[in-house]
Order: sequence, then C-alpha cells, then structure tokens
Amino acid sequence: MQRRKILGIAGAGAAGLAAAGAASLAMTRDETAAGTAPESAAGAVAFYGERQAGIVTPAQDRLHFVAFDVITDSRDELVDMLQDWTAAAARMTQGKDAGVYGAVGGQPEAPPDDTGEALGLPPSGLTLTIGFGPTLFRTSAGKDRFGLAAKRPAALADLPTFPRDTLDAAISDGDIGIQACAHDPQVAVHAIRNLARIGFGKVSVRWSQLGFGRTSSTSTSQATPRNLFGFKDGTANLKAEETALLDEHLWVQSGDGPSWMTGGSYLVTRKIRMLVETWDRSPLIEQETIIGRTKGVGAPLSGTAEFDEPDFTVKGDDDLPKIAVDSHVRLAHPTLNSGARLLRRGYNFVDGSDGLGRLNAGLFFMAYQRDPRKQFVPVQTALARQDALNEYIRHTSSALFACPPGLLAADDYWGRSLFA
Amino acid sequence: MQRRKILGIAGAGAAGLAAAGAASLAMTRDETAAGTAPESAAGAVAFYGERQAGIVTPAQDRLHFVAFDVITDSRDELVDMLQDWTAAAARMTQGKDAGVYGAVGGQPEAPPDDTGEALGLPPSGLTLTIGFGPTLFRTSAGKDRFGLAAKRPAALADLPTFPRDTLDAAISDGDIGIQACAHDPQVAVHAIRNLARIGFGKVSVRWSQLGFGRTSSTSTSQATPRNLFGFKDGTANLKAEETALLDEHLWVQSGDGPSWMTGGSYLVTRKIRMLVETWDRSPLIEQETIIGRTKGVGAPLSGTAEFDEPDFTVKGDDDLPKIAVDSHVRLAHPTLNSGARLLRRGYNFVDGSDGLGRLNAGLFFMAYQRDPRKQFVPVQTALARQDALNEYIRHTSSALFACPPGLLAADDYWGRSLFA
Repeated sequence: MQRRKILGIAGAGAAGLAAAGAASLAMTRDETAAGTAPESAAGAVAFYGERQAGIVTPAQDRLHFVAFDVITDSRDELVDMLQDWTAAAARMTQGKDAGVYGAVGGQPEAPPDDTGEALGLPPSGLTLTIGFGPTLFRTSAGKDRFGLAAKRPAALADLPTFPRDTLDAAISDGDIGIQACAHDPQVAVHAIRNLARIGFGKVSVRWSQLGFGRTSSTSTSQATPRNLFGFKDGTANLKAEETALLDEHLWVQSGDGPSWMTGGSYLVTRKIRMLVETWDRSPLIEQETIIGRTKGVGAPLSGTAEFDEPDFTVKGDDDLPKIAVDSHVRLAHPTLNSGARLLRRGYNFVDGSDGLGRLNAGLFFMAYQRDPRKQFVPVQTALARQDALNEYIRHTSSALFACPPGLLAADDYWGRSLFA
Repeated sequence: MQRRKILGIAGAGAAGLAAAGAASLAMTRDETAAGTAPESAAGAVAFYGERQAGIVTPAQDRLHFVAFDVITDSRDELVDMLQDWTAAAARMTQGKDAGVYGAVGGQPEAPPDDTGEALGLPPSGLTLTIGFGPTLFRTSAGKDRFGLAAKRPAALADLPTFPRDTLDAAISDGDIGIQACAHDPQVAVHAIRNLARIGFGKVSVRWSQLGFGRTSSTSTSQATPRNLFGFKDGTANLKAEETALLDEHLWVQSGDGPSWMTGGSYLVTRKIRMLVETWDRSPLIEQETIIGRTKGVGAPLSGTAEFDEPDFTVKGDDDLPKIAVDSHVRLAHPTLNSGARLLRRGYNFVDGSDGLGRLNAGLFFMAYQRDPRKQFVPVQTALARQDALNEYIRHTSSALFACPPGLLAADDYWGRSLFA
C-alpha cells in the first residue's frame, strides 16, 4: 500500500478509471521522467509529470491533431468527460486499450470501450497534449458558458488578423485542442478517435489534421528534418535540453497570469498551404534567396554550416546583404523580434488534391510559447508583411490553445487546475 | 562493358536517364528479386523485374496514391514523360534523388531536378506501381486520344454503377494511376510529388490519397492488420507465397487479352468512408454479427482461431447459421463468388473531419486481380446488395487501372509494351 499511497492512487476516484488501470499506471509512472523519449520508437512516454508530455518530448514522426467544440451546456458533464478522457489517455499512452475491451461488464449489448484498431500495437511513443481555446472562456449572450470567464489568461487573447490571412473558419479555432503524436499513425488516430467516442454528446469534432515527417527537431538528439519546400526546418528551434531558455520562452512562469496555467504553455496552430508546384519550378538560387539558407546543407547564406549563426551584415560582391532583407530566416530571427523564440513542433501534410490539378500540401505549423502576444504575434506580423516566401504559401487555418501543466497524480485530471 | 551489356544498358537511350544513373541502377538491379522485401524497413526494393514491385511486395505501412489526367494531346510528349518518369522512379526507389540535385548542369537559374524533402532519408522500401485507366484508351469526339483504342483490354471495361454507390467524380477514375508505398510517408509523398513535377504541362493531378496502417497482409510473413472498424482485415487475402493461386487470380495470363498486359494485373481502388462514430456506438455482438468474425482474435463465428476456414453451415442454439447470411465474410467469400479471389492492398485513411462533427475516416480499398469482370465486379455486386455492413459505409470514389508487367532492363520504360 505504501507505493500506491506515494503515487497518490489510494484516493483515486476519477470516473472511468478502473482499479486495474490505476495499478498499472502506477507501475509505469516512475519508470521514466514525463515526456522524455522512450528507449525505442515502440516504447511508452510517461503520461504523468510536471509538464504535459508532447511539448519538449523529442518530436515523434506522426501527428493527429483534433479541435473539439463543446456541445454540452453542463459544466459537470464537461468535467466528467475530462476525467474520463484523462483515464483513457493515461491508459492509451502506455499502450493499453482506452477502456475495458470487449463486452463491458459481461454485457454483450454494450458497445466496446475501445474501438480495437490498435489492439496488439505497441505504445509507439504516443503522447496526448490538451489545450483550451479562447471560446471556452467566452461569455456569449450574457452567459458565461462554463463559469470560466474570470479565469481566462490575458495571454489567451484572440490572435489578430494578419496581412494575407486566408483563413477558413470551419477548420480554425476550437474549444479544446488535443495533439496526438506517435511513431505509428494508427496509434495516434486510435487515440483521437477514442477520445471523440468517449466525448460523444458532449463534444463534437470541429476539425482534425493528420501530419507526417515532423518539421522541427525539439531535442539536440534529433537531426533537423525537411519541410515540403525541401529545406531543413527548425535549425534554430528551442530544444528540450536548453532548460534556461525554456523557462524564458516556453513555460508559463508564476506571476505571468492565472495560476492554473503556471508550468503550462500556449500553442498556436496554423495550417499553411504550400504551393509546391510553383515552388518546384523556381530556380534553386531563388529558393535559397527566399529562405536565406542553402537547400542542401541548410547553412545560412552568410556561412557554410547548418548551425552557423546567421550574420545579416555580411555583404556579397554586389554590396547587398548575402542574407536578403526579406528572407524568411532574417524576418523570423530573434534579433529582429525582440528576442522572441518559439518551440516549433510542426508536421508536413498532404490532404489529397485541390481540384485544380495540384497537391493540397503544406505545413501544419505548431508552436508552443510562454506568451503569444510577445512571441508568435510579432514574428508572424513581420513575416506576413514582408516575407518573400508569402508568394508560395497561404495560411488557411489558425487556432490558439492554453495548455495547462502536467498531471502529477493519478487522481488528477485534464483541466482540474482550471475547473477546481 | 560486359556487365552493362547483359543488363541492357549498353543501348539505353531513355530520355533523362543520365549515364551515372544507369550505372548505379545496374549496381542494384541484381541484388534482390523484384518486389521482394528488403532486409530492413529502411532498405530498397528492386525496381526491375518480371512483375511490377508494389503488388505482391509485402505491404509497406504507408501509401500515397495519385491519379493523373493527361492534359497533353501529343502521344510523343506522353511517351517522353513516361520515359522520364521511369528513370526517376528507378532512382527514387533505390533511395536516390529524382534527378540531378542542385543547379542542373551548373545552371543556377534552373529549378532543381529533385524537390529535396527526402534528402538524407533511406529508400524506406519505396515501390512505385503504374497503371493505365480506361479513359486513356477512349475515343472522344471521333478522335482516338493516343491511338490506343484498339489496345484496350476487354477486362478494362468501365466498372458498373453498383447499388448504393455515392461516388464523387472529382476523386474517381483517371488516365494514369501511380501507387507509392513506403515505410516512411515523406518518401512516398516525395516520389509522387516529383513525378507530378516531371509531368508538369503533360499531366495534371486529378486526385490523390494518403493512407496508413496497411489493412491487408500480402505475405505469410506479415500479421493481419486491423481496419478502422477495429477488425482484422484480409485474413483470407491472396499471399505472395501462393504462386499457383497468383497465376490463377492475380496475374494476367497469355491469351487473356492483348499481349501488352500479359504478366500484369488490374487494380481497382475504392475510397470507402466508414461512419466510425455510428459503428463505435453499436454493441460488440452486433459488430461481430455484421462482420461474421470475432473482433479480438478474428476467428470466423463458426470457429475459434483466425485462420479457421469459415463454415457457413454451422448453426447456433437458435437454429440460425452462426455466420449470418448477410455477414461481410460470407458475402465476400470465394465459395459464394464462383471462387473469385483478390489480392487486397488497402490502407486506412483519416482526411480531417467532415464538417458534421465526425472524422472523415475509412478505408482506401485497393485490390489487384486478373480480371475485374470475374472478380471485383461480382463480389462487389453481392456486397452492395446485401452486406449488413452497408449501413456503416459509403463508397465515395472508384477507379480502375491496367497495370502492365514489370520492366526487365534499364532501357525499358513504363508503358513501352503498350505504346511500342
């Protein structure tokens, strides 16, 4: 009993968390620090910990992101669902079924508590990360939807409309966002699908996005991957190992706002359609000038190696800066944005074709940060105004979520710091 | 020179096939038999061989399928493009760039001959499989598009409209279909995207589909995977090792029709939307009755183990057949379809959400066969009329392609048996 007590399970009462499930959670809880990489791609990432897993966790190769609308008006129903979700998430991230598989309690007339398509598959590094959107805190028609209006952080301000935005409202925003990352898409899809199943009647899928080929490394142990423009993406990304920088740029600090977000982070998602067919017909030299880096090695045009610090003062034979003033790397660089940095965690996507003879392809951009008002918003404002890359991209969706800190005990649940 | 001569490279004149490329193709050609699995998931599958790779090749985990409309009216341009495609496909399947990377011939003003996003990635088991659709052979407004009308096989008859079909013409059919399968989606996407790039001005992307979690094993070395209904799928699939059955059911035999298809196979693709939310709320017993198999083990309801042969005569206590007469497994079974069998090679898909609060999820069904008129058409007719599963599925796209035999020498090209 001592072990169970230490782990906070003795008093566990989370709805839907079977005793067997709680015991097995305890078994895994202290095996690895939350969010660190498992020993193999098939292994499990710890669900419990000071931070939510899936943020600084070395980026897995596949994504399924979902945004839900809350359709119940009942705060109690919403909280019950968040408790059920937490229990299922704790199980699924450890490679278990979402609930009791098969006929529940011997009732063959009941639907199964797991949809089955991940039976026999390993945990595959699955992480599930939750965030709450501005609309959850909204007062509409004089009614505070869930009594949360006073708890809305100032940093969860609606994003402004940026120049050149071509957003589709149907695939933007959302009351709740959940990021499922895994090395196996079937595992990520299974997790989101079971959360949707559990939430039936309380939430409705607003939009969802699959992604592959992570476009940013989030750990110094990872090589820099390439986006669908063929360039290395995220060379200068914040990395899990840079703990002082993470406190400065990633994690919400005590005093930043309401205490329920302390230790959390804000997530901005942007679906960025890339006009790859047009890009593919532009000369290499033009591509490199637009990005400000070489395509092969990924070196800034002022240097020779990928991790050379860009030097915007170096001029070429033509007396112009080697890194163009409207290049992507310059406009996004911290030195031009009051030092703002982001932890990017985006994925490539191809959503079939666009009916105009082109692939519907691009980047599902995701960036975690301490305060979007000081980080994403100024950087994107600069990019939207001047970036030479704009000719080849379109922002088609946008969302913002406040992602609370991690759960420390098995009787804790997603959102307790907010709803308690 | 002897080695080059044997490999048929001495006289190679295929457009776009650089000498360096040809030499390296020769290096890899006799290392493995075409289409067999590489030693690791990162390895290469041989491109050249009697059969096209990607049919009996043990099914890789990821799919990018594309259907092109041919937009040029010039037969010569089409043939040139097929030669360029072949050279690029031979390179990419071996883990090389599609063409010379970087500034072509030292011309910095030229676009690169490879889009770059797969730089540094291993071959990842990539296979590229081509097929020609009925519309390529069509005579329209009295004009035989490419002089192929007389070469159209009778087996390439337009598929009939099946009961319950809800097809979207915009994502159906196509003049040319290409299946890219790989263990890394970035590699599969890179391959299709570069073929589209090479075909610019000659072909236009009509539709494309990404898939994951292969839903059928095509080799006895593979475990049976699960579809998004949570059931094992493809237990009774034709397998690569069943060579006599493959000659009977998969490969076009001499005398079956025009000789250019001898050794090839016909591919039917069907995008099947699954109403997973409705399915997930149906009782386990109902799910199992509809499929005719248990969900966990995958055993036919007349037996106890996955590979038990279904016995449709076994009755339960209620004197009704244990496997229902309208169950999926019974209606699709060879004994009820004049012995017809298919080599299925489908993948799961999730294309975001449908705007009605549901995941847009399902099965991208692909089946190779010797003659669709005797195999897919009668089986699908029976299923469309009676299958209890129809309540939970919608067929939203359909296509048919004639996939010619493999290429034996590096001066051969996709479609030569048809165009020569």
